[in-house]
Amino acid sequence: MIPRYSRPQMAAIWSPESKFRIWFEIEAHAADAMAELGIIPKEAAKTIWEKGGNATFDIGRIDEIERETKHDVIAFLTHLAEIVGPDARFVHQGMTSSDVLDTCFNVQLVRASDILLADLDQLLAALKQRAFEHKDTVTIGRSHGIHAEPTTFGLKLAQAYAEFVRCRERLERAREEVATCAISGAVGTFANIDPRVEAHVAAKMGLKPEPISTQVIPRDRHAMYFATLAVIASSIERLAVEIRHLQRTEVLEAEEFFSPGQKGSSAMPHKRNPVLSENLTGLSRMVRAYALPAMENVALWHERDISHSSVERMIGPDATVTLDFALARLTGLVERLVVYPQNMQKNLDRFRGLVHSQRVLLALTQAGVSREDAYRLVQRNAMKVWEQGADFLEELLADKEVRAALSEEEIREKFDLAYHTKHVDTIFKRVFGEA
Amino acid sequence: MIPRYSRPQMAAIWSPESKFRIWFEIEAHAADAMAELGIIPKEAAKTIWEKGGNATFDIGRIDEIERETKHDVIAFLTHLAEIVGPDARFVHQGMTSSDVLDTCFNVQLVRASDILLADLDQLLAALKQRAFEHKDTVTIGRSHGIHAEPTTFGLKLAQAYAEFVRCRERLERAREEVATCAISGAVGTFANIDPRVEAHVAAKMGLKPEPISTQVIPRDRHAMYFATLAVIASSIERLAVEIRHLQRTEVLEAEEFFSPGQKGSSAMPHKRNPVLSENLTGLSRMVRAYALPAMENVALWHERDISHSSVERMIGPDATVTLDFALARLTGLVERLVVYPQNMQKNLDRFRGLVHSQRVLLALTQAGVSREDAYRLVQRNAMKVWEQGADFLEELLADKEVRAALSEEEIREKFDLAYHTKHVDTIFKRVFGEA
Amino acid sequence: MIPRYSRPQMAAIWSPESKFRIWFEIEAHAADAMAELGIIPKEAAKTIWEKGGNATFDIGRIDEIERETKHDVIAFLTHLAEIVGPDARFVHQGMTSSDVLDTCFNVQLVRASDILLADLDQLLAALKQRAFEHKDTVTIGRSHGIHAEPTTFGLKLAQAYAEFVRCRERLERAREEVATCAISGAVGTFANIDPRVEAHVAAKMGLKPEPISTQVIPRDRHAMYFATLAVIASSIERLAVEIRHLQRTEVLEAEEFFSPGQKGSSAMPHKRNPVLSENLTGLSRMVRAYALPAMENVALWHERDISHSSVERMIGPDATVTLDFALARLTGLVERLVVYPQNMQKNLDRFRGLVHSQRVLLALTQAGVSREDAYRLVQRNAMKVWEQGADFLEELLADKEVRAALSEEEIREKFDLAYHTKHVDTIFKRVFGEA
Amino acid sequence: MIPRYSRPQMAAIWSPESKFRIWFEIEAHAADAMAELGIIPKEAAKTIWEKGGNATFDIGRIDEIERETKHDVIAFLTHLAEIVGPDARFVHQGMTSSDVLDTCFNVQLVRASDILLADLDQLLAALKQRAFEHKDTVTIGRSHGIHAEPTTFGLKLAQAYAEFVRCRERLERAREEVATCAISGAVGTFANIDPRVEAHVAAKMGLKPEPISTQVIPRDRHAMYFATLAVIASSIERLAVEIRHLQRTEVLEAEEFFSPGQKGSSAMPHKRNPVLSENLTGLSRMVRAYALPAMENVALWHERDISHSSVERMIGPDATVTLDFALARLTGLVERLVVYPQNMQKNLDRFRGLVHSQRVLLALTQAGVSREDAYRLVQRNAMKVWEQGADFLEELLADKEVRAALSEEEIREKFDLAYHTKHVDTIFKRVFGEA
Repeated sequence: MIPRYSRPQMAAIWSPESKFRIWFEIEAHAADAMAELGIIPKEAAKTIWEKGGNATFDIGRIDEIERETKHDVIAFLTHLAEIVGPDARFVHQGMTSSDVLDTCFNVQLVRASDILLADLDQLLAALKQRAFEHKDTVTIGRSHGIHAEPTTFGLKLAQAYAEFVRCRERLERAREEVATCAISGAVGTFANIDPRVEAHVAAKMGLKPEPISTQVIPRDRHAMYFATLAVIASSIERLAVEIRHLQRTEVLEAEEFFSPGQKGSSAMPHKRNPVLSENLTGLSRMVRAYALPAMENVALWHERDISHSSVERMIGPDATVTLDFALARLTGLVERLVVYPQNMQKNLDRFRGLVHSQRVLLALTQAGVSREDAYRLVQRNAMKVWEQGADFLEELLADKEVRAALSEEEIREKFDLAYHTKHVDTIFKRVFGEA
Repeated sequence: MIPRYSRPQMAAIWSPESKFRIWFEIEAHAADAMAELGIIPKEAAKTIWEKGGNATFDIGRIDEIERETKHDVIAFLTHLAEIVGPDARFVHQGMTSSDVLDTCFNVQLVRASDILLADLDQLLAALKQRAFEHKDTVTIGRSHGIHAEPTTFGLKLAQAYAEFVRCRERLERAREEVATCAISGAVGTFANIDPRVEAHVAAKMGLKPEPISTQVIPRDRHAMYFATLAVIASSIERLAVEIRHLQRTEVLEAEEFFSPGQKGSSAMPHKRNPVLSENLTGLSRMVRAYALPAMENVALWHERDISHSSVERMIGPDATVTLDFALARLTGLVERLVVYPQNMQKNLDRFRGLVHSQRVLLALTQAGVSREDAYRLVQRNAMKVWEQGADFLEELLADKEVRAALSEEEIREKFDLAYHTKHVDTIFKRVFGEA
Repeated sequence: MIPRYSRPQMAAIWSPESKFRIWFEIEAHAADAMAELGIIPKEAAKTIWEKGGNATFDIGRIDEIERETKHDVIAFLTHLAEIVGPDARFVHQGMTSSDVLDTCFNVQLVRASDILLADLDQLLAALKQRAFEHKDTVTIGRSHGIHAEPTTFGLKLAQAYAEFVRCRERLERAREEVATCAISGAVGTFANIDPRVEAHVAAKMGLKPEPISTQVIPRDRHAMYFATLAVIASSIERLAVEIRHLQRTEVLEAEEFFSPGQKGSSAMPHKRNPVLSENLTGLSRMVRAYALPAMENVALWHERDISHSSVERMIGPDATVTLDFALARLTGLVERLVVYPQNMQKNLDRFRGLVHSQRVLLALTQAGVSREDAYRLVQRNAMKVWEQGADFLEELLADKEVRAALSEEEIREKFDLAYHTKHVDTIFKRVFGEA
Repeated sequence: MIPRYSRPQMAAIWSPESKFRIWFEIEAHAADAMAELGIIPKEAAKTIWEKGGNATFDIGRIDEIERETKHDVIAFLTHLAEIVGPDARFVHQGMTSSDVLDTCFNVQLVRASDILLADLDQLLAALKQRAFEHKDTVTIGRSHGIHAEPTTFGLKLAQAYAEFVRCRERLERAREEVATCAISGAVGTFANIDPRVEAHVAAKMGLKPEPISTQVIPRDRHAMYFATLAVIASSIERLAVEIRHLQRTEVLEAEEFFSPGQKGSSAMPHKRNPVLSENLTGLSRMVRAYALPAMENVALWHERDISHSSVERMIGPDATVTLDFALARLTGLVERLVVYPQNMQKNLDRFRGLVHSQRVLLALTQAGVSREDAYRLVQRNAMKVWEQGADFLEELLADKEVRAALSEEEIREKFDLAYHTKHVDTIFKRVFGEA
């Protein structure tokens, strides 16, 4: 997480201020529950909220105490006691640091997820709009980077839309994975804390109680969470790579938006680099990498060890902030992508009708020509196009053997691009529910 | 995938025989649909099934053709034509190799998932049985590898059970991710194939039509699939590491089963190594590694490239076969795990009651002793235990300052292990729905 | 490791036959050393070689014994005893299984390295030859996929050459990392075996004694080894991606070789897919992935555990066989790469001289025109090229303001491609030591 | 890179101040070389140093310009012009941003390497000192976490020492890998810049000229660099895991240092957690993860793309800062590790002599007892120890069949720990060159 690739709302989730505020809320809600259960005085619970609810926690002071105690939660509780006064002794009763830390981490991940879900919604909206805009913009489909058959630019974007719909569903499930709360005390046995405290805190913090914790919330949940972010990053990379390809000098079917200022800055008008897509490619690599330590965090020793902590202090912010930035950048890129339908057509026509050779071949076969002969006929005309730059349609029309099997009308019909786009509506209906 | 870590049923899914059988079924079902739509003769579709339905495909012959054509699907179709005869020309009409290959890969992954789900069911059954068996077997809970508070061995297994329940849910979703079928032709436009063919094949093969494919089924689905296997492997590792820890010479609270034969083979009875758990640790690393190339496969170029293919030829079998083997091995290990409750008790008593120090501390505080004094009192007695091997309970009972605050009965009550296990039923109900 | 991506020589290193042969040699050399030291009878050592030296080990029989004993080394020794007779009791004295297994694994890795080094030599030879062949074949250099400044195709290959020279050096070091031998007995203390036995076996097997082993050879060596293979794979990917780009329909500056047979098989002459390069991209992902479990293998517990074993049984063959296959495939691809200098020139001329705009800009500045004015002048002519397809040189020559600063000759000189290639010899000398 | 896991000296390398200072030096040295070659006025080069050499660059101002220009190097050059005045027009002539950025990145990595090398030296010193201190401290060696044969604590540390010596050598090579400089202009052809400028800058910045760059320095160098850091991290993890194991409650053979203050803070004297080692385990996971995107960075498109940049902005600081912190933490941990030889002895004696059973077995065989009988004899006595807590030596001495083969003296001799440590000096000499 570096400022260059951060957006403030997501970064704020990981600030010390946010963290201490969540810690306070967990403690204060727990106190409420304990008061309700008669474990601590109701007045104390009330005082905690009154004194702490609007307090500004002094990060410097907490750091100072931590340097002494070498324990972050104790440092916070000590500072809280300075604010709340004597009733602070009723805070944290029967709880462990992990109860606070793990529940807080999950609250942060849930909030991060909510931002990411909103990011995805914006990306989906942009993709949908541009997909419909270019639903019928014919372009050459490419396999292996080589011209194959025509498709439409709208279909390209519809595919991306469908992919990010899946990403959104995955993220919702990932959010659910980490939306749990544990207030279960040492080694998770509830020996010193009533399970109803956990239930109350969970409800208040928008979480569900972790069915069984062992002081810590099990880390397979977080492994799944970060693995999901990694898959989303991979989908970002796919679309970024597509744009980078489309912007290549020789292809130039689409281009990242350049502000007029940017445009004017270079003496080489063709030198507009897809730097945003390239940047997204790099950011995707990072988000993908963070999934690995998250998986290695699962195998904690016995009821818990603390090896996961340093990893999460880093990847918690790093993965969510980077993905948020990447999704927002991608959305802007899609929204303002400059599309060049005329270049798409030019590229499509590059081989002067050759793209239709397979249809001609099929038509010949269906007209009773043997497969071998049909191949020979198509190929000898294709070769003239390829080697001499001839026009495929004209060559076919002039080929007597071809004409013996197919009429001019039949041949011309094979050059109709509409043949390739006749199911665009079908596909759009599948993807968007409308066409 | 090496024989040593393979089980036949899973390995069979990835045999050439299975693959060609699935290819045949996809082609034959597609022919049925085309016949129904009047695209090819109904007789032809019937003949394809009659001749090919029970045929044994000659792998050697197919390989031979592939060496010539350098194309696996063409090689298969050529061989199929040798079996089916002239009607073979109606096979594969308007389809691409990817339609066959991608749909087949997903069929294989779905079948692999079904085996893995059954594996998980057996593991869950084993965990549940052993968890209930040891629901009340008290053992020391450990944080950081250090004794913390008592828990039960049943709770350890219940945690594993809950974790694998989550794994099972994840795997079901992962199965759903890849349970799609694409018969959409070149660059996925359905230009040469009716979408109803896809619908028919999908239904027959137990899949859902891929809403939008681009000749290939998008690889974010497979990235998610293999990432999920990687998370499951990480959970296997967690339980394996737990067993390795429990079997350590100094701990010896549980042990991998050794057959009488194995037992007798060594002159050192303590030298029973947790080799199965160690093996599972290694296998988990492998399954985890396979998630990475699966994620890198997502960003195919334009409508498709073939870079994913070599990866999938390797990780398809490798990841599923290894995970199947690991789950089965773990199940056997859990079922036959030798548990030593007496050693658990011995370890728990290692510090002669010191494990109860926190409860005593709390009791002193609640009895009105200041926190500082309470610490001092507990610590001075704890130190005698730690340094001189004294008995904590006896020391406390003999400490006048302690006794001024707490009666003998009150002190003894703090040494009651039942205090720590009073919520075991609560937790079991959460995890198993019963206790 | 699957047959499709294997070459026999490398695969043979990992066969059971090779493994047992190496095991035998380790044991027989150790026996020699022990005989020399008077620990076992000289006759026994001699007999071991005589009976075992040319024996064919019966894999089936060894497997059969292993199924009983569940121990591979014991199974081998038992079978060896069947061959050698009573003197077999002098085999393996004071040694542990790890002494045999780890030393054997390193012998295999060293042999694999030797093949890989030879592979790299062939690749380097191919790159060098093609680099010199195209030393002066001018082509457009691209940054961000966008035309930048001219370079030569030879320079592209020279860069690849320099990169694989580095890979070769890295591999030599990696080979050295794993070229160690440990015959140090249980927990590596030499309690039951004389260090001179290790020295002898090491010398005979082409290894150096491991300075300190703990029953196992430390796995940081192997982590470094597989990490090095992963880096080499990444360099393979770079060149593969370059070729994929060059073969794109719109670029077509180079093409994978297609045999005449292959060419004729399609009706679309442009549809020659860079399937080998794409395949290499996928294989690179796999080799990269294997580095991870190798790194996780380092942290074995105490003196050793066996978690690394399953990993190495898989990645040992998988990584080396795949990399060998990939290097050989890449070499063939480079050797037979079809290069299209005319297309390179055509692409270079695509923007009718615009590629020289920066030189013109610089010349104007040097001629005393202010930076702002120079930009304005270049840009207004560039825009005519870009938007109207004009010729940049002609426009400049016709621009009075430009001509006021630069003579025709001066302008024409800026369009000289030789300007860009004047240091090709310098660079070739750096890379190849000759130009 | 987060403050909690950063040390100031390493973090400073990555500050904007350091970066801009390095940029300045690269530009100023390049100007010197150009002046020497007569390309720019000597006075100008002098002025650049005079005005810029001691200038404080205004980060805020540079950021401000970058927000406008969206180009970091131009922003810096603009700010530099504000400082240097008109002669600034002679800065950066014929150079590209990459010349500055890539060379700077390598300077930073080289400086980071020097700190890491110094870190390793301190770690090695600590390991050596503690290894000699405990050269003869006998402890049980463990395979699979199970008692095996005796070793010494010094040998454990000697193994770590040897491992980090290898890490140091690897790091030196990795440093060399990235110690290159490229001042080669657009697409690396030196069209606009004399190669002698590069040579001069390289020498001044402590680098070697990159033999062939393509505007960028090839990223296989950096892949190798970060892979090497990942391997070093894995070795850190190994030692950290060893300490975590040794500190386990039941083992307690060593313990992380606790300050008196820390000790007194808990009522449970046994509850000293190996939190530093656990932390190191987590940090190792992170450093390992960073190697992956570094490897994916290798396959840049054509002469260069910018996808590597975001990755390096993150892993450059993250990997080096984290590894520096981890090495320093590990050194402190080793220096102050509390070792408990008495506990080592206690654990060794845990099975009352059973650890010597293999030697007894061997002695019986050598005394002519058949292997089967020897096993039976050893095992029946071993079982008494194992099941009834008997003393192995006493049982053997009392066993008539055993005594028939071995005298009391012979049996007692088998219980001599010195047998196992007789080669400690040999090994120390190998590792340290002295014993």
